[in-house]
Amino acid sequence: MTLLADLLNTVFERRHRRETPAAAEDGRPLTELARALVGSAGETSGLALAREILTRFAALDDDAKLTFFHDIAATMNIDPEAVRTTLDEYERNPSKESYRAFTVAAEPARQELIRRLNRVPGATEILVNMRADLLRLGRNEPELQALDLDLRHLFASWFNRGFLVLRPISWESPAHILEKIIAYEAVHAIDSWDDLRRRLEPADRRCFAFFHPSMPDEPLIFVEVALTKGIPGSVQTLLAEDRAAMPAEEADTAVFYSISNCQAGLASISFGNSLIKQVAADLSSELSGLNTFVTLSPIPGLTTWLQKEGIDWDVDAPDAMRAQAAHYLLNAKSRGGLPFDPVARFHLGNGAIVHAVHADADISDKGRAQSGGTMVNYLYDLSKVAQNHENFANTRQIVASTEVEALANSFDKTPKQER
Amino acid sequence: MTLLADLLNTVFERRHRRETPAAAEDGRPLTELARALVGSAGETSGLALAREILTRFAALDDDAKLTFFHDIAATMNIDPEAVRTTLDEYERNPSKESYRAFTVAAEPARQELIRRLNRVPGATEILVNMRADLLRLGRNEPELQALDLDLRHLFASWFNRGFLVLRPISWESPAHILEKIIAYEAVHAIDSWDDLRRRLEPADRRCFAFFHPSMPDEPLIFVEVALTKGIPGSVQTLLAEDRAAMPAEEADTAVFYSISNCQAGLASISFGNSLIKQVAADLSSELSGLNTFVTLSPIPGLTTWLQKEGIDWDVDAPDAMRAQAAHYLLNAKSRGGLPFDPVARFHLGNGAIVHAVHADADISDKGRAQSGGTMVNYLYDLSKVAQNHENFANTRQIVASTEVEALANSFDKTPKQER
Amino acid sequence: MTLLADLLNTVFERRHRRETPAAAEDGRPLTELARALVGSAGETSGLALAREILTRFAALDDDAKLTFFHDIAATMNIDPEAVRTTLDEYERNPSKESYRAFTVAAEPARQELIRRLNRVPGATEILVNMRADLLRLGRNEPELQALDLDLRHLFASWFNRGFLVLRPISWESPAHILEKIIAYEAVHAIDSWDDLRRRLEPADRRCFAFFHPSMPDEPLIFVEVALTKGIPGSVQTLLAEDRAAMPAEEADTAVFYSISNCQAGLASISFGNSLIKQVAADLSSELSGLNTFVTLSPIPGLTTWLQKEGIDWDVDAPDAMRAQAAHYLLNAKSRGGLPFDPVARFHLGNGAIVHAVHADADISDKGRAQSGGTMVNYLYDLSKVAQNHENFANTRQIVASTEVEALANSFDKTPKQER
Amino acid sequence: MTLLADLLNTVFERRHRRETPAAAEDGRPLTELARALVGSAGETSGLALAREILTRFAALDDDAKLTFFHDIAATMNIDPEAVRTTLDEYERNPSKESYRAFTVAAEPARQELIRRLNRVPGATEILVNMRADLLRLGRNEPELQALDLDLRHLFASWFNRGFLVLRPISWESPAHILEKIIAYEAVHAIDSWDDLRRRLEPADRRCFAFFHPSMPDEPLIFVEVALTKGIPGSVQTLLAEDRAAMPAEEADTAVFYSISNCQAGLASISFGNSLIKQVAADLSSELSGLNTFVTLSPIPGLTTWLQKEGIDWDVDAPDAMRAQAAHYLLNAKSRGGLPFDPVARFHLGNGAIVHAVHADADISDKGRAQSGGTMVNYLYDLSKVAQNHENFANTRQIVASTEVEALANSFDKTPKQER
Repeated sequence: MTLLADLLNTVFERRHRRETPAAAEDGRPLTELARALVGSAGETSGLALAREILTRFAALDDDAKLTFFHDIAATMNIDPEAVRTTLDEYERNPSKESYRAFTVAAEPARQELIRRLNRVPGATEILVNMRADLLRLGRNEPELQALDLDLRHLFASWFNRGFLVLRPISWESPAHILEKIIAYEAVHAIDSWDDLRRRLEPADRRCFAFFHPSMPDEPLIFVEVALTKGIPGSVQTLLAEDRAAMPAEEADTAVFYSISNCQAGLASISFGNSLIKQVAADLSSELSGLNTFVTLSPIPGLTTWLQKEGIDWDVDAPDAMRAQAAHYLLNAKSRGGLPFDPVARFHLGNGAIVHAVHADADISDKGRAQSGGTMVNYLYDLSKVAQNHENFANTRQIVASTEVEALANSFDKTPKQER
Repeated sequence: MTLLADLLNTVFERRHRRETPAAAEDGRPLTELARALVGSAGETSGLALAREILTRFAALDDDAKLTFFHDIAATMNIDPEAVRTTLDEYERNPSKESYRAFTVAAEPARQELIRRLNRVPGATEILVNMRADLLRLGRNEPELQALDLDLRHLFASWFNRGFLVLRPISWESPAHILEKIIAYEAVHAIDSWDDLRRRLEPADRRCFAFFHPSMPDEPLIFVEVALTKGIPGSVQTLLAEDRAAMPAEEADTAVFYSISNCQAGLASISFGNSLIKQVAADLSSELSGLNTFVTLSPIPGLTTWLQKEGIDWDVDAPDAMRAQAAHYLLNAKSRGGLPFDPVARFHLGNGAIVHAVHADADISDKGRAQSGGTMVNYLYDLSKVAQNHENFANTRQIVASTEVEALANSFDKTPKQER
Repeated sequence: MTLLADLLNTVFERRHRRETPAAAEDGRPLTELARALVGSAGETSGLALAREILTRFAALDDDAKLTFFHDIAATMNIDPEAVRTTLDEYERNPSKESYRAFTVAAEPARQELIRRLNRVPGATEILVNMRADLLRLGRNEPELQALDLDLRHLFASWFNRGFLVLRPISWESPAHILEKIIAYEAVHAIDSWDDLRRRLEPADRRCFAFFHPSMPDEPLIFVEVALTKGIPGSVQTLLAEDRAAMPAEEADTAVFYSISNCQAGLASISFGNSLIKQVAADLSSELSGLNTFVTLSPIPGLTTWLQKEGIDWDVDAPDAMRAQAAHYLLNAKSRGGLPFDPVARFHLGNGAIVHAVHADADISDKGRAQSGGTMVNYLYDLSKVAQNHENFANTRQIVASTEVEALANSFDKTPKQER
Repeated sequence: MTLLADLLNTVFERRHRRETPAAAEDGRPLTELARALVGSAGETSGLALAREILTRFAALDDDAKLTFFHDIAATMNIDPEAVRTTLDEYERNPSKESYRAFTVAAEPARQELIRRLNRVPGATEILVNMRADLLRLGRNEPELQALDLDLRHLFASWFNRGFLVLRPISWESPAHILEKIIAYEAVHAIDSWDDLRRRLEPADRRCFAFFHPSMPDEPLIFVEVALTKGIPGSVQTLLAEDRAAMPAEEADTAVFYSISNCQAGLASISFGNSLIKQVAADLSSELSGLNTFVTLSPIPGLTTWLQKEGIDWDVDAPDAMRAQAAHYLLNAKSRGGLPFDPVARFHLGNGAIVHAVHADADISDKGRAQSGGTMVNYLYDLSKVAQNHENFANTRQIVASTEVEALANSFDKTPKQER
């Protein structure tokens, strides 16, 4: 019954949200409304104000949005003098009151603005989109970057792992969710509903997403999984249209072959690590035959790096490609000693190891362009990820299988053109 | 299907929570674990650490809990020097980096500790209980009050109205929720399951509670509602065991006759205002015959105040009692000019008005002791609450019906004993 | 919790169903198994037998299915001598025992066979498909028609209106249900997921289906509804890709523009009448602005009948087409005095009236071929359907609007070619 | 979404049911309405008629109900002449039409009446209660027994195992379901909500019920299960208020200690066998440590039989009591060679064996009165129940453990008083 109540309530709130009047009802400028909202003591008038601000903001064009961002960044910032005064008083006389005064001064008013806007049912999603606008429009301005840090700070607290819900995505999921999976897939494009069905319906395919209870129609991140016998070496085999499905119980390996973030407005708030580990744990307890958790990952930075280094490559020389890829994964670094490859950074940072490298593994145009068709398996050994992660975090140490180590060592550093 | 997924997932996570190992597995002192958690870069080791801390804390006795609170209050506080240095640097050179450095310095590490603890599934409820412990044990120590301000700051953000879910509570609700309603009822005690059923099952009774998605088994606050014809003047009539129920469609009035907060650990985070207004709006759209939203409220401070003022009262003189009560509600003030009566503070602060005062309205021992049996109806006129609230917030102006104004004016200020 | 339990249980049972061993485990011929099942006193062995029979039947080819049908039709029929003997005994000595003996003798054993097969979780759907096979393969054999009457008798009882559940179908429905809507749409083909979305997602579009709790993944019948201002006169306007949606609250008319039966195995078990009336009642209570419930229906038998009658028609003469269509709807009869047109039979039998006739209303190839592009609105006046139905059932009286009566009267009976 | 739809729909239909007008609107006598309903061709008028009949019947007193039953038993019976005529015609000329005519004649019109009444939402529960009335009022009249056979025939089809849903009942179940569990418990009375909680909430306790989708608020039958180490020998130990619960994972035995039928109107329609086997299978797959499925059952007929046989017994002589109980269970027979004890008939009929007999096992007044305090464990060995059932069904062979066989043999047949 509680559940029923819940649903009825959700329906009510959704309706309510849709009925939100689109027309502006308060003639004051938007920023003035924002200041009134932060000043408003009462929840009653606050809710109406907040609704008005969200509605009006959504209707702005990019220039007006930027103006609004600049305005709240400037006028709702911290006041250094107030910080100093309250800090001095707190040091002199530490008390509940003096501490409260300091914390109020040390937090810019725009954080309270965002929290009050969030009281409106359905506001969370709108605020996430507001940050997406901010990142798109204000990327290079320090003032707006500071505003973004405030949004990110709040979102990191609101989208805390403890508040997220893991949901399987299947062919029995609602169509309005599935169309978002199609839209958000960032690794191997889903080109039709039939293609989607091939990734969801067979007994040896799974998909999982994180959701936030206040944005039930919007996945935050999702991972696509193939259950296989043995570790696969190419995505075209994995996704072949005419392949025969296998009973899930016969699988020994779970392959995470695609992970996609869905919300531009949640950039820099990391969910992928939790997602992979939770899914691995869940699958492991459901299917006792699984003993290997592995990715089949792109190597998006390979050709860029080879080019940068002045190294030639030949898509039709699979052994050479594999050696180059192995060398790149283990030795190509960016600032701070982290791996140059962003996908490698992610999985190695999670505590995975470089398990195997394959040539001709992604023969799509995109695959050939970014990595000469090579792909890599990162292996998640659940008993070792914590230690691997620790080592990587502290010493940047990358663990690889003997085979990949050997491959990397076989890489002939002499650039082709010099030979 | 998403819903199903959700439920399966919830079940999984609950199981998981119950299986949380009770035994300590890491020999280090608790505070050291807490420091390690804040220092921990990786989520992997972090989750295990957090789980360990929550488990170990729950097993502590009060003395050990107090020690732990003192320790994190002292060692995870802000560093004034760091605040000043980063603030200076930010003023000199405002940039993303300098702003980030300031925000990190200005927020005590214990906030990050609480956020990281919250990553464990089921942690939110444990943290709320941790704050209840803190409030119980550390009420008068400035250092712990500061720690509490941090917890309250986080909880106010997490339990933002936009994240709460309103659920009807009915005789079809799960028994484990209903037993909490019995336990948490703070106004008119529920003395048995039969008593509970009389408040939930009849067609002219309703109950609603706010829940947080991460604490689905714990109501945060609930309100009991009677649907009536006309405004009732006594709780014994309202709750009479042998009364006949009425079809909800025939009611013209919704009476909020009991509002109870459930979580000691969420003290000072206000939900009641939102709850009443949401319930009034929902009932209004469900039952078109409703035109009056009113409370039947206790006057808990009346006899205390009369005694304090040296005024006698006579429970058996109903007219005199009503006049005293009306006077008290309109004129008895505490510091800051707010009403002396806490229930009056709440409803007037929400924008309600003092509508009517009744004698012999709560003839229970508690009712006679606290208010000589008087009760009051606060009226929520949805078209005026915003304005009333505004006036009350700015000028402490209390609105009352003509009848109550007259009653208050009839109050003979000369204390009886002097006559 | 009950709900959760339910779902878990459903999941369990579905899994169970899928795990049903495909391989035959009992060497006996299928008909012998069927006889053993009817003879089996115990549920335990019965369940295993039933599962085996269902599994083996599903794997048969058409010839073998036909043989099986013939066999149970012949060997599990009534025994006239037993019927007579038990009937005589019952007449001589009416008692519980003699009545029971008669009822057993008067019901063929194959009915008990079907009931016992149905004990297997998931069997209902399989049995419905079994009847679809029977109708396909045994249409003209009296023996198999008798077997079909038994199946139909059981299904009419099992699919009683009281056991059906009405569900809205929306863009938030599970994809595996939606793909069935695409597949089963029988009136205006849905040619893609985008086309489907246009019929489900806009605020002024609705779809409803009947389901049976034992076949939750299979709609039985569904109706597509457009909410409009005024009564529409062409399907191409109604389904135009580029039309703008309207808020549902602004609609005064609900147009049932497509009704499709989904299960061949439930032929002759009528759901359409209930569906239309239930949907009309539900929409009426949701949207108070609705005052007209009307169809936009094809006239599938028009050109066939014109041809049969030797009447020419001209798709490009809209007035003439409308007069012909009106005349046909009111006067063309089949055996028993019922309307010749099957769609007219259905709606007039439900108590609707012929409200308006439109030319150029369905300009698809199918529409032009079957009715020269004409369509008709049948009007459901909820206050009159019962009386209309009664009159139609008793006297075959067809009610039409004055306008349609006039149109029909304007029909020039002299066939064109004679002029 | 389908689920949501479902729930909304259910809510709608329930409301609808409750709004069913209580007042009679059609002045005709009830039986005349019944005849009109059977004659009614159309569903529209049929629904209103059916609603009227159900409403009016519910308001009748027992005499009027009995009159109604007699009337439909007499006037809606088969017409033997029609049966003979249609049978002759079918034999002469077997066709779809002649078969249909026979089946119509051979089925009394009251069956169609019941099916048409069932079209009203919520009718199934009312019809089940109608049969409970019939059984209560018409137990000894052949005419009404025949009517009851028709109801039973329909209900056996509607409550077919394939249509039932198994739901766990827990402390998280809705209160309105739980109060029915309290009311319907027929073996060991539940004397309070606390007592109920002790049977549901501990980790080593389970409860399961069968429901029908059209009666979601009414359990049909439920079983209470204790998870234990070893087979328990007394119910007072099993239900001790102060016992410590055990993690379910540590249990090796599932004890079915109470099975209660809930619906008088479903008498003679057996669910218990299916329930026990389904629950055993579910628990078995959930808890891999379980290897023993056993009851702790009363022996309700023991002292009655001893008395009938003129055998004395002594509650304080445990060994003698056990021998008498063992002898009784294996040798006391009623007509047809079936066990005299009804509980024994049920479990042995399901394929269980007599595993152990205990003295002082139920020391409640009821336990001492009916069986001198003895109880019995019937063991369900899932690998043997089918064979045991078969043997019992064919030869009345009772299987018992060696220990119980020896006990029974030790029984001294010479009645005490003769010694």
